[in-house]
Amino acid sequence: MAEKQVFVKEITPKSEDFSRWYQDVIRKAQMADYSMVRGCMVIPPYGFAVWELIQDALDRRLKASGHQNAYFPLFIPKSLLEKEAAHVEGFAPQVAWVTRGGDEELEEPLAVRPTSEAIIGSMYAKWVHSWRDLPILINQWGNVVRWEKVTRPFLRTTEFLWQEGHTVHATAEEAEEETLRILDIYIDLVENELGIPVIAGVKSEQEKFAGALRTYAIEALMSDGRALQAGTSHNLGQHFARAFGIQFEDKDQTVKHPWQTSWGVTTRLIGALIMVHGDDSGLVLPPRVAPYQAVVVPISVGDWKESVLPHAVAITRKLSDAGVRVKLDDREEYTPGWKYADWEMRGVPLRLEIGPKDVQRSQVLSVRRDNRAKAPIGWDSATTAVPALLEIIQKNLLEQARDFRAQNTTEVKDYQELERVMSDKRGFIIAPWCGSPECEDRVKEDTTATIRVIPLDSKPDTKCVVCNKEGSRRVYFAKAY
Amino acid sequence: MAEKQVFVKEITPKSEDFSRWYQDVIRKAQMADYSMVRGCMVIPPYGFAVWELIQDALDRRLKASGHQNAYFPLFIPKSLLEKEAAHVEGFAPQVAWVTRGGDEELEEPLAVRPTSEAIIGSMYAKWVHSWRDLPILINQWGNVVRWEKVTRPFLRTTEFLWQEGHTVHATAEEAEEETLRILDIYIDLVENELGIPVIAGVKSEQEKFAGALRTYAIEALMSDGRALQAGTSHNLGQHFARAFGIQFEDKDQTVKHPWQTSWGVTTRLIGALIMVHGDDSGLVLPPRVAPYQAVVVPISVGDWKESVLPHAVAITRKLSDAGVRVKLDDREEYTPGWKYADWEMRGVPLRLEIGPKDVQRSQVLSVRRDNRAKAPIGWDSATTAVPALLEIIQKNLLEQARDFRAQNTTEVKDYQELERVMSDKRGFIIAPWCGSPECEDRVKEDTTATIRVIPLDSKPDTKCVVCNKEGSRRVYFAKAY
Repeated sequence: MAEKQVFVKEITPKSEDFSRWYQDVIRKAQMADYSMVRGCMVIPPYGFAVWELIQDALDRRLKASGHQNAYFPLFIPKSLLEKEAAHVEGFAPQVAWVTRGGDEELEEPLAVRPTSEAIIGSMYAKWVHSWRDLPILINQWGNVVRWEKVTRPFLRTTEFLWQEGHTVHATAEEAEEETLRILDIYIDLVENELGIPVIAGVKSEQEKFAGALRTYAIEALMSDGRALQAGTSHNLGQHFARAFGIQFEDKDQTVKHPWQTSWGVTTRLIGALIMVHGDDSGLVLPPRVAPYQAVVVPISVGDWKESVLPHAVAITRKLSDAGVRVKLDDREEYTPGWKYADWEMRGVPLRLEIGPKDVQRSQVLSVRRDNRAKAPIGWDSATTAVPALLEIIQKNLLEQARDFRAQNTTEVKDYQELERVMSDKRGFIIAPWCGSPECEDRVKEDTTATIRVIPLDSKPDTKCVVCNKEGSRRVYFAKAY
Repeated sequence: MAEKQVFVKEITPKSEDFSRWYQDVIRKAQMADYSMVRGCMVIPPYGFAVWELIQDALDRRLKASGHQNAYFPLFIPKSLLEKEAAHVEGFAPQVAWVTRGGDEELEEPLAVRPTSEAIIGSMYAKWVHSWRDLPILINQWGNVVRWEKVTRPFLRTTEFLWQEGHTVHATAEEAEEETLRILDIYIDLVENELGIPVIAGVKSEQEKFAGALRTYAIEALMSDGRALQAGTSHNLGQHFARAFGIQFEDKDQTVKHPWQTSWGVTTRLIGALIMVHGDDSGLVLPPRVAPYQAVVVPISVGDWKESVLPHAVAITRKLSDAGVRVKLDDREEYTPGWKYADWEMRGVPLRLEIGPKDVQRSQVLSVRRDNRAKAPIGWDSATTAVPALLEIIQKNLLEQARDFRAQNTTEVKDYQELERVMSDKRGFIIAPWCGSPECEDRVKEDTTATIRVIPLDSKPDTKCVVCNKEGSRRVYFAKAY
């Protein structure tokens, strides 16, 4: 157990310094590493395997709902980026510019895409002619670059990985339906695969995407009481279609601008996973996005290689054949105690220990990562018991996060309480807001909290927490990442 | 049939103008499109679906052989790129430089990665300490940028998609084994999934990767008699380890530089697919990389919606359930003849026609894309007959390409014949070469052909075709893309 103590000591306790805890976990669990390039991170294999599982889960949902993947250029000519006024205003301060190719100075600088509305819009103007060409339901997996002053692994980096959907529709109604369909897919992904409960709603005008008509978002509460925007779905209206000259002949033979949407989730979801589920021993991964769902650790005592190891190999193969992502840790240079701590730190949902006594009883001892509960599992029932236990862990993590959020969501009575809660326990605050940017700014200035979303079912039936104006809606405030 | 004639007319005949034929097929079959950005192409959904199938096929093979995916930054600081002398010399003329971020001029320009040896090498220097850390077997899927003067879709574009593997080994032998293991994986991928036969071998010193010890490559013959480099696997020796300071303590407790490899295939494989298998009617896709392996076309005559369509729907579902990627084309605005030409142009391996007579006989009429052979298939046997036919088509395409290559490979007797064949039918020329850059250059100057590869089993037992020196090896010459 000596190694375990030493090992865990390397992670700063969460309660002591959340930010350092986060960085310790990321480094020790090999989720990300710092590179020589300012603000750019490296995602090593273990962290990247989590991203691949998230990608698979989302890609499946997008394809099942009729979307197709495609690829558009990394570079956007300056003049093209500038076509939509609000869009360029929003993104220009964050753009990395290519000004030289080989030995040649470029006549026109090229933006490294911060997002692809402009370049994709220019192609849609070529592709869309008739109502028969619609809808276009395209998604792209790729990298984007936003020049950031302050960066933090996964949460805000100069380059990050994401998917960006870009759709074109014949009517305003269809575009709005698509925007909400994607919001539902994101809710399903984040809650059911990542075990993170979210609040869905509309962004205020100030917080919406540069160039959008309306931005929907899902917001999750991190365990330090800050909110994280986990995905956005934008109804772009006809803004980009007008800017980029996208037109189609409708069934009634009139020429119209189509309606568009765009939407994305990023590698920031991995940051959310870490911050929502992690604890002082490190990462806690929900089984559906865990590279290894179970690790088999043979107890290396006596003639374990003859007496225990063959059974560990057999149970590993059996589980693997049953579709469980399982790893056998048969390394000789580490003790079982060291391995327990190592796999705990890396967030593996289930540990299966097997020693001489377990062999006698034809069982393994399962230890859950989420609550450390131990229970023997017979070899014969393992292929059903292990997947069932993984499902229980998956659900429990979502429930735990829901409980935490409930305990850290405060519906405040007045502005004083809003200020007090924000400076004290933080979390989500539900308070009525009249809709004015002035009241929104006031809260931001006094508390640094912003309106995260206006829930979809929020009714204008109460008084603004700032100005007392009637006809205000309950919205979610929080300090955000 | 009127529509078909018109439709096919839009593709320039292959024999008339190969280059225009290639571009027509790409555009009409929606494999790629030109963007507003110089030298950058767009890959629309149909073309991208082919890339996704190639990715799946290769990713499976790489994971099965112990490789893991990861992600490294897009940008490489200038000073880092310059650390390996031969490497920077090879790539500097092709680098796109970011010199501005937001409003700030960068102190040090950032290269948009043309390849990632430098940035990955800098991380491996952090990660590798002991023989226990080795081997590192990492692959990355991503985009790279090389500033090209002349571009052609898929074959040479400023930005392209690829995978790049980067491995680190404790011994020279292991690195060489890995380089050859990957070469074998590439041969398997390109021959068995893409139906393209390849010649494998070593590159000459002049043609090797900038910074490598030795470059292995696979070369395929396009149907215009030019060769295309379809994949490369580099043994980097210790060059990059020395340049980037990668060191490890070996089992014997001495500190050593490890041995590295890097290897990649790109979206250029899609260009190879088009050029090897395509014909005057358009694309011909091997079933394993075809987004739709079969298309069901109901013959729309009389009461077809009641009498034929339900059976077309049923057979489509049956085949889909059996794992066939099948598409039902029930569009009402197009005639069957138009659809035949459309799907032929898009290269779908198998067309399944179903009309009133087929319904009477409980069959569909299958039409192969590769040789247009027709045969009825009974509904009851469809789930075995269709996959079997797809396998036959897959094999036939490889055989056809092998036959073409055999007919277009000439083992020449002397230099005059070499020159005559190169100016006449082209193709691969097998001729002995002494190994000197002078003789290599002479052939290049006289014919524009280059040494594509030195086959692995080539023996030094004959006279050089240029200088008559004894002890020369037979190598493959060709004009190359």
